[in-house]
Order: sequence, then structure tokens, then C-alpha cells
Amino acid sequence: MAKIKVLVNGAKGKMGAETVKAILKEPDLELVGQTDLGDDLAAQIKASQAEVVVDFTRPDIVMKNAKTILNSKAHAVIGTTGISEANLKELEKLCEKNGVNCLVAPNFAIGAVLMMRFAKEAIKYMPNVEIIELHHDKKLDKPSGTAIKTAALMGKKDIPIHSVRLPGLVAHQEVLFGGVGQTLSIRHDSISRESFMPGVIMAVRKIKKLKGLVYGLTNLL
Amino acid sequence: MAKIKVLVNGAKGKMGAETVKAILKEPDLELVGQTDLGDDLAAQIKASQAEVVVDFTRPDIVMKNAKTILNSKAHAVIGTTGISEANLKELEKLCEKNGVNCLVAPNFAIGAVLMMRFAKEAIKYMPNVEIIELHHDKKLDKPSGTAIKTAALMGKKDIPIHSVRLPGLVAHQEVLFGGVGQTLSIRHDSISRESFMPGVIMAVRKIKKLKGLVYGLTNLL
Amino acid sequence: MAKIKVLVNGAKGKMGAETVKAILKEPDLELVGQTDLGDDLAAQIKASQAEVVVDFTRPDIVMKNAKTILNSKAHAVIGTTGISEANLKELEKLCEKNGVNCLVAPNFAIGAVLMMRFAKEAIKYMPNVEIIELHHDKKLDKPSGTAIKTAALMGKKDIPIHSVRLPGLVAHQEVLFGGVGQTLSIRHDSISRESFMPGVIMAVRKIKKLKGLVYGLTNLL
Amino acid sequence: MAKIKVLVNGAKGKMGAETVKAILKEPDLELVGQTDLGDDLAAQIKASQAEVVVDFTRPDIVMKNAKTILNSKAHAVIGTTGISEANLKELEKLCEKNGVNCLVAPNFAIGAVLMMRFAKEAIKYMPNVEIIELHHDKKLDKPSGTAIKTAALMGKKDIPIHSVRLPGLVAHQEVLFGGVGQTLSIRHDSISRESFMPGVIMAVRKIKKLKGLVYGLTNLL
Repeated sequence: MAKIKVLVNGAKGKMGAETVKAILKEPDLELVGQTDLGDDLAAQIKASQAEVVVDFTRPDIVMKNAKTILNSKAHAVIGTTGISEANLKELEKLCEKNGVNCLVAPNFAIGAVLMMRFAKEAIKYMPNVEIIELHHDKKLDKPSGTAIKTAALMGKKDIPIHSVRLPGLVAHQEVLFGGVGQTLSIRHDSISRESFMPGVIMAVRKIKKLKGLVYGLTNLL
Repeated sequence: MAKIKVLVNGAKGKMGAETVKAILKEPDLELVGQTDLGDDLAAQIKASQAEVVVDFTRPDIVMKNAKTILNSKAHAVIGTTGISEANLKELEKLCEKNGVNCLVAPNFAIGAVLMMRFAKEAIKYMPNVEIIELHHDKKLDKPSGTAIKTAALMGKKDIPIHSVRLPGLVAHQEVLFGGVGQTLSIRHDSISRESFMPGVIMAVRKIKKLKGLVYGLTNLL
Repeated sequence: MAKIKVLVNGAKGKMGAETVKAILKEPDLELVGQTDLGDDLAAQIKASQAEVVVDFTRPDIVMKNAKTILNSKAHAVIGTTGISEANLKELEKLCEKNGVNCLVAPNFAIGAVLMMRFAKEAIKYMPNVEIIELHHDKKLDKPSGTAIKTAALMGKKDIPIHSVRLPGLVAHQEVLFGGVGQTLSIRHDSISRESFMPGVIMAVRKIKKLKGLVYGLTNLL
Repeated sequence: MAKIKVLVNGAKGKMGAETVKAILKEPDLELVGQTDLGDDLAAQIKASQAEVVVDFTRPDIVMKNAKTILNSKAHAVIGTTGISEANLKELEKLCEKNGVNCLVAPNFAIGAVLMMRFAKEAIKYMPNVEIIELHHDKKLDKPSGTAIKTAALMGKKDIPIHSVRLPGLVAHQEVLFGGVGQTLSIRHDSISRESFMPGVIMAVRKIKKLKGLVYGLTNLL
């Protein structure tokens, strides 16, 4: 079977570099290109005949990159944050126009994705809930993107989200449900960037079979 | 709409008494009888015209009770432990013969049922797992029935189960999954018998629409 | 050895009733009286020759009770909340004047007291900290008294305290310290009023040997 | 004030390299030497005039190193595992003979040391306890050295220790105490080698003022 040709955009960044390493380990994937700021992305996609482009760049340039990828007739796996709902609609049209697919995912850790999915299910039976997300003290924004996404998936606007910032933490989230005489807790602990790689690899493998734009890794499980 | 007529067998026991209280609070349910050891269960079902019988008695008499209920053409909600796989087959036949349904559930706490269901799903993506169940030091058996059932649902025979027995604990279970750079934990804490009542009530409401024998509350969610 | 004569004030309340039960189980303690609202506390102390009076009444009457106890030359174990710092000074003088001792404790659970004590010690080495206290959704005040006391013991004014209120919870608190590459968590879970009894009994036994006014059970350990 | 002259033995190993980096960051410490297998340790200590030698080497050579350090009249901070009780006695005599001090510590993470100390204190009031230690699945030995040391400090021979080995974990330990109606949990989570450095630096600074042989960082707090 032919290998899937993959190009990594943002290859010099932390997540991009980790993605390059992860792709090189997979026998069914072929790394055909590594690009970064300053490179001509469209030209490199064409030259490398990349089928899938993984983007881990920056919020301010991610939309420009995504458009370039889709207009180059390559499938896009977008891990960069900063895509708005209006952006998603625009990407959906570009997918349709170019006959390619695009996955936009705020979190590629399988465990985090399962946590979000289970939270969405649990709230049907246990409507009282609070999200506590805990991150290292260098993370300045709060709440985390994953916490916001989790609350959105649960479809309630008033879910309390509490953010803890302390040294020694990495990236953690607990979704705590309370019911009569009982509590249910779903917790994800991430200790390294490596935790995202199985999700990225799964996305690269499955993107061809998606239909147009897909938001969130949950839809691939 | 007509109320559902319910009889509680084992009404003097702790779980039975709690069930009686819970049924009395629900406007769509009618408590038509309370029986216990020494009562003629078949006669009482007939006299009360009970449609659903909830059984919280003892492992050594539960099969006899279940047969009586089903042969009395009432639906059975069995919370008593001690039903073997061979027993389940026998009950399945009795359901078919009598045109009624039977739910056998080792745990009625919604949170515990969700935990089991999520564990069954998570193991597909994160195969490394351990179950830790924690109970008060008066609980002599180990592992707990819920831990055994959780492992069985995950379909692997070699899942480690660790049992903690300490005063001050009530009934708790954590299912801990480990993957590259991450862990996912699903934990249920139960602090009182009341935690089982929403599950019992849901079973009483839904049993008419089941098909024959159903094992585990997960199938009602 | 002579038994210690104990009177329980507020004996009809939940905590008072639990205290009565606990004292009756101890061979070295003698329950000489039970009083409540409407009783003449001073007269009952005199009549019963109580050496120690345990008070679990109400914030609005606790100071009046405490004064009565001390002026009746009995040692006081005060579990009722609502004693201010100014109140403490007043009680201190009354202890001196009457030659008796008074223990005022916001929390009698040994585990909670140890948590507070360890938190006070840990902050010397790990100054980054957050307190999360979790209680059932019927508890309206926040943060809890124990959380406030824990922060005060740690001697820093800007310690974040987060309060979670959900059904299914009882009374829980976690003190989370973060340091380079590590976290330390001290957590107390209380599931019943019984958890306070070993602390109350210890206070009754030790109060004779204290010196004047003592605030907090930590000073008895 | 004169800087403290420090030599790191085992400087090419993971812990040794981290120690070198940590010492270079401290203005009151001077890194006067880095040695490893094959180097003449005694000669290097002499040449560098090192006052303190930190040893992170291997169990099979640690005693030889420790003797060399102490006989070279330098204080020794030993982080390498594998020192037996008989070894400790031998080191004690060498300290006395040479007029220097030696710290042997199985764990330099301040949080872990506090956990052990608090566990030792808590067991006096809550004698029912279990230790659960959790590590990555590449750690083959169990229970961990820290768990064994914690149990030893608590002075009871029958404390249950449970070991969890899963990918995604790093180094974690929970000491869970159970009492009437309550539990107290003390948990340490370590996510990187850096977590040990504040403890190593503290040991280097304080070793001059110790008296002879000291076992465990707890004695420096």
C-alpha cells in the first residue's frame, strides 16, 4: 500500500518538531516536507506532492496557512489555535470547492478527547457539574481552550470553570459531576507534548475519509 | 396517564426501605405493596396487581423470588447480587415464556454505570489500565462486584484490580488509563444508599419497554 | 481513676446528640448532664458538678454560654462557630479569673486538623499554594470556615481559595502546593458528623491540662 | 561571604548533569569540579579544594566514592541509592574520624520529604493507612524506595503498599489514612528531575552545619 505523503508546516516549533519525529516513526507515513515562516508553503506543497499538511504555527497566520493548504488541494490537519466560528464556515466552503478535507482540533491528546466526549454524555444524567483545569504558572490565559471546548460540548452556558495556575503542574483537567449521594470525576493529566502525537497520527491517517470540515478529534473516534 | 404499580420485595432491608421512600416521592409511580421474608410473594403480586416488582433481598433467595415475579407476569427489577450466568439464561427463558421483562443490575448508581460505560469505551484507545476500588473496612469481600463487572466490560482478563479497605471510606472506584505522556482517570464516589435511587426509579419507569432479560443498567441509558 | 464529669450543652442539636452518644461509649467519661435552649445552664452545671462542658449551640448565643460555663468554674470545649478575635480576648480573661481552661475549635476532625498543621509547615518550603474546598450544594456560605482558618494559619493574605458546591459532596478540602517539577497535595474528606467525635473526646480528656484559652485543636496534638 | 566550593561526581549522568546546571545558577555556590567514572576522585577533590562533593553515581560504586570523599576531608551529599544500614554505620565512623559530615538521602524532592514527614506524624492519630505509589511502566522494581522509606518512617511493619505501573505516569505517591467518618490523603507528584534540585541545593548549603552522618532530607527541614 502506498504511504501517505505528509508535510509539516511550522516544523521548527515545539509541536511541529515533535510531529516530524512522530511521522518518521510510522511505516505507513512518508514525510515529504518541512516548512516554516518565510517558506513558500503553496510551492512546497506542490513540489512535494503532499496529500496531507499538518499545521502547528501561530494564531495570527493559521487562517492564511489553512487557505493555502486547501487551495493547494491538500487535506489539512490544523492544530494551531485561534480559529473562530466564522473561520470554520470559510474553511468549510474551501473544502467543498477544492474537494479536500480539513480537521481543526484544539486538543490532540486522546485522553483529553475522551474526557470531553464522556463529559458530553454524562451531563445528560448528572446535570450538576464543575470544570477545574490546572496548568503551570507560565500559562497566562484562562480558562484553557480545552475547558472552554468541554463546556461548549456540554451545551450549558453557566458551567463554572475554575483555573489553577501553579509551578509543578503541566496540563490537567477534571470534570466533576455531582448527583444524589454520589460524584463522578473524569480527569485528564498530560505531562508532555508527546501525548498529542497518537492523536495527530490518527488524524493524518483518517483525514482522507472525512467529509469536508470536521471540528474536534472526537469525531474521528 | 395511569401510574405504574410497583411492589417492593425486601422492603424491611436497607435498600428496600430506601426504595419504598423513593417510590413514594414520584408522582407517576404507585406503591401497591411491600413484602419481605415470610410473605407469600406470588399472592401479594396478584392481590396488588403490581406491574413491576423491585427485589432487594438476599443472594440465597433471589432466584426463587425472580422466578415467582416473572411467573406472576410482573416485570422484575433485581438489585440483589448473586445471579450467575446460568441463572441469567434461565431468567431469559422465563421472560420469554411469560411475556415480561427482567432487569438484573449489580449497581444502580448512575455515576457508577457511566464509569463502567466510559471505561469500556476508553480501553479501545488506551489499552493500559488498572482498577482501584476503595471501600470501608467492614466490607470483607474483594474485589468488589462493580470492579469485577468493570473489568469484564472492558473485555480483558488480565486487568489489575487493587482493593483498598480503610475506615472512613464508603464506596469508591477509580479506573486509571495510561498512554504516551498522559493519563485518564474515571472515578466514582458513592457516599450513601440514596445514590442508587435515581437508577432504581429509572429502571422501574423503563422496564416495560425493554425486551426480555437485560443485564446492567448501562443498557437503559 | 475518677471519671471526668461532662455536660453537653445543645444536646438536642445534631452535633450535640452525636457528642452525647460518643461520651456514653467512653469508660473514662461520665455524662452528668444534657442541656439545651431554655434550660438554666449555670444551675445545671452546679447541680451536676460538671468539670467539662461541651457547647454545640448557635453563633448568636455561644458567647453567653461560654461566659456562663467559665464563670461556673467549669472547663469549656466550644465547637460552635461565631467566636470573634475580640471574643477570644474576653474568654482569655475569664479563664484567668476563674482558673479554668477554654478550647475554641472551628473543626474537630483530626484529619482536618492535621491537614491545617501540615499546610502551615509545607508553605515554608513550597510557597505557591491554592486551597480548594468542596461541599454539598446546601452549604450556602463560602469559603468554608476551615478554608479561612487554613489560609490564616499559613500566614499569607493572598492565598487563592476556590469553593465547589455540588450535590453528592459532603465536606472536603485540598491544599495544593506547587514547586519546581512537583506538587504536594494534602486532602481531607469528611463523610459524617462522627468524624468530629474523636477530636471532641480528645479535647474533653486534655482540657484540664491546657493553660487558659486555646484556639484550634492543633494545639492539643 | 565566600562561596561554597562544590564538586559533582557522576556529572555525566542525568541527575549529575542536572545538579551541575543547578549549582551554576546559585550565586553563593562555586562549581569547582565535575568528575565521572575513570577520573581520580581523590586527586580531583584535592586539586579543586572542594568543600562539598555531591555524588550521583551507581549503587555498586557509591560506597567506594563515599569513603574517598570523606577521607579527602570533604562533606558528602549522597543521592545515589544502594546504601545499606551497615554502610551507614561505616560512614558514620568515617565522618567522626575525618571531622566532616555526610548526608545520605533517597529522595531530594522537598515535596516528597514533606510527605514522608507528615505521614510519620499523621499515623500517631490515624493508625489505619495504605501507601499507593504510581510510576511509569519502565520502572521495574517495586515497591519504590520512597514507599519503603515512608513505611519505615511510620514504624509499622504491616503497612500495605500498592504499586501501579502505567505509561503516562512519572513518579507519584499517595499515603491514605482512614479514620472514623474521614480520610486524610497526602500525595506527591513529581514530573521531572528538576524537582530534586531545590533539595540538593539546600543540602549543599546546610551540610557544614550538620553533625556527622545524617540519613534523609527530613532532618534538614
